[in-house]
Amino acid sequence: MPIITLTTDFGEKDHFAGAVKGAIYNELPDVKIVDISHSVSPFYISEAAYIIQNAYANFPKGTIHIIGIDSELTPENKHIAVKLDDHYFVCANNGIMSMICSEIAPEKIVEINIHNTIQTSFPVLDIFVKVACHIARGGTLDVIGRTITDIKPIQNIKPFVNDDKTQIIGSVIYIDNYGNIITNIKRSFFENLQKGRSFEISARNHKFKTIYKRYSDIVNFELPEENRHSDGKGLVVFNSGGFLEIAIYKSNSATMGGASTLMGLDLMDSISINFSATSILPKTVEFI
Amino acid sequence: MPIITLTTDFGEKDHFAGAVKGAIYNELPDVKIVDISHSVSPFYISEAAYIIQNAYANFPKGTIHIIGIDSELTPENKHIAVKLDDHYFVCANNGIMSMICSEIAPEKIVEINIHNTIQTSFPVLDIFVKVACHIARGGTLDVIGRTITDIKPIQNIKPFVNDDKTQIIGSVIYIDNYGNIITNIKRSFFENLQKGRSFEISARNHKFKTIYKRYSDIVNFELPEENRHSDGKGLVVFNSGGFLEIAIYKSNSATMGGASTLMGLDLMDSISINFSATSILPKTVEFI
Amino acid sequence: MPIITLTTDFGEKDHFAGAVKGAIYNELPDVKIVDISHSVSPFYISEAAYIIQNAYANFPKGTIHIIGIDSELTPENKHIAVKLDDHYFVCANNGIMSMICSEIAPEKIVEINIHNTIQTSFPVLDIFVKVACHIARGGTLDVIGRTITDIKPIQNIKPFVNDDKTQIIGSVIYIDNYGNIITNIKRSFFENLQKGRSFEISARNHKFKTIYKRYSDIVNFELPEENRHSDGKGLVVFNSGGFLEIAIYKSNSATMGGASTLMGLDLMDSISINFSATSILPKTVEFI
Repeated sequence: MPIITLTTDFGEKDHFAGAVKGAIYNELPDVKIVDISHSVSPFYISEAAYIIQNAYANFPKGTIHIIGIDSELTPENKHIAVKLDDHYFVCANNGIMSMICSEIAPEKIVEINIHNTIQTSFPVLDIFVKVACHIARGGTLDVIGRTITDIKPIQNIKPFVNDDKTQIIGSVIYIDNYGNIITNIKRSFFENLQKGRSFEISARNHKFKTIYKRYSDIVNFELPEENRHSDGKGLVVFNSGGFLEIAIYKSNSATMGGASTLMGLDLMDSISINFSATSILPKTVEFI
Repeated sequence: MPIITLTTDFGEKDHFAGAVKGAIYNELPDVKIVDISHSVSPFYISEAAYIIQNAYANFPKGTIHIIGIDSELTPENKHIAVKLDDHYFVCANNGIMSMICSEIAPEKIVEINIHNTIQTSFPVLDIFVKVACHIARGGTLDVIGRTITDIKPIQNIKPFVNDDKTQIIGSVIYIDNYGNIITNIKRSFFENLQKGRSFEISARNHKFKTIYKRYSDIVNFELPEENRHSDGKGLVVFNSGGFLEIAIYKSNSATMGGASTLMGLDLMDSISINFSATSILPKTVEFI
Repeated sequence: MPIITLTTDFGEKDHFAGAVKGAIYNELPDVKIVDISHSVSPFYISEAAYIIQNAYANFPKGTIHIIGIDSELTPENKHIAVKLDDHYFVCANNGIMSMICSEIAPEKIVEINIHNTIQTSFPVLDIFVKVACHIARGGTLDVIGRTITDIKPIQNIKPFVNDDKTQIIGSVIYIDNYGNIITNIKRSFFENLQKGRSFEISARNHKFKTIYKRYSDIVNFELPEENRHSDGKGLVVFNSGGFLEIAIYKSNSATMGGASTLMGLDLMDSISINFSATSILPKTVEFI
């Protein structure tokens, strides 16, 4: 029996997530349900896209992912089920899947049509649960909808590159629990353009010339602890999902603030990377 | 083995929920535990009542629901176990069950007396877990307490109706994750009184003359998208639980604010519905 | 198959917890994963120590506890696996385990060395999951690391006592969901020093001369309800974990505020207990 995961903007308090889990167990007593997140900001499709993209591939093949954001059925917001990378996704066709699909071609997409007579203000409960349970029982996508080939895109999935390829302009797509700023610039995208050139990353009036592998690479462990002053320093890493991230070392977003508040950067803000004409020197670790 | 659900005001951070889950698995390694909510506002019995009422019926028959709000045993706050609608509820007799019991008659209520010698500041762990596991093993309610016939009520379960039945005065019983305002006026209650008359709903200085089936019914999809201006509009629906709800279309309570903050409405505030003498016209969709 | 628990500072929103759960199920489809908390304040080791100490022992023997706080591998922050009280703990050697280990001697501690070639900014996913699954499959600690005898301490585990044993100076180590203030003064520690003497607890300008067994012990149930005025009163209890706690009766930290905000007490603040020369009188319940 496959796993069913839940990624929604239901929040932690309301009955919505509990009701959905109850309904799934009512149909499939032996299934495993895993909460990925219920704290997506209400109607923030790009947040949900980022979360599901970074979580899904860790699950076993065959897992079914219910994504409940902006899922009310309208003439312009149809429901879809997608098979991709041997995982299944059940969600609205509102752009959520376009981040994943921009990297991995979907094997099959159907527009769900089993519910044309159901009017509901809680489609995750009334529709998505039924679809997910159908798939969990081994049912095919063909039974529940008609095949379509395109999904709705979201904006700002990919950063822009200028004509002479000396500049990338990306944007902030997510701010995490530590206040760290995640951009839409992926490591592979960056490295394909960089080709060994040195670079400067600009985020508002903050500049960075090094991208680290790990957060703690900013710390010079050869200095005595009282002379390091690492906590609270800004740094850039490619995070575990491969996205360029601007972080504050050991920040607590609730107290001292994270990169987002300390640097004044919010969702959709721009980040630029300028490449120099010269090649980067043999890598020396810089402590900014 | 039945499911055990948890609805508490423990919050997401503390060890309380984890401790309770550990203790249940310690007694019953094969049981399934489902978190409904741990984010009920501390000691807000009516919030817990609303959440459990809307979640429980989705679970399989035989599910045992632990509700941990205001559960310290005192001379005036006894512990009860209730069988109702083929579900079991273990909680304090502080009004939590009165919302559900006002709609469905309980099959059996016992006042728990297995613990008269236990003094504890963590009764969910020390008492409710034991009771729930007893029921999960197939034990009867008679073994753990004495049958009682009445439970403690909470106020404002039902809205008021004036003598000539031209006005309903309800109140706000819950504010959800989207900032939407849920009242104690249920669809069946409303329709029994309405009898085809037109009506006006007043919430502070906001007036509504239509109740929608779905949130997106406020959108006129025949207009081009740039002329609709639906996002941020106020509307009234009967929500998925059948409660009259005042919502803001696609509101984000964390940023632009939801109906609660935008309309200045809080828990316990009044909502009135005035019926006119005339019958409602053949339904035309109104865009307020 | 043992249970694997998760205690982290990942927060409720991000993909981190979902990714970790997916990775565990990918290795061990039949394991049970239990979330203890993902809302530890970022990098607050003492909070995590308090939470895990109060939760772990409720789980069955053999449970494996992953603690993901400040877990990036550095020359000064190694990864460890600890067997203690027939439970297993996988975490960084940053002080998290020192609270538990100060009460119960660990059976075995190993410094994990299976990953000396892995560079990762997400060690919980890339290292701790592998170690936990190894233990869950029945693997020994010797295979994954070298035995060490000492772990890194955290400060303020134990309160201070003056030379003539007339005063304890403790500190606030945790503030819970109700805003209650938990100190590092444990019941056994207190009683060993008290030896029947009367005492006065001082927290800022608040004084308490009684420690209750339960929160509701502050209520005089012989008075009619309108004359009690218990809600909002300050009191002291030994909480369910045995820690001295300053609470506000039925406080809601989100609205009226809890003990922490109402008394102006925060993490690390001092609490003192002064013992008098005279013995305590035969216990009379005092309503402060």
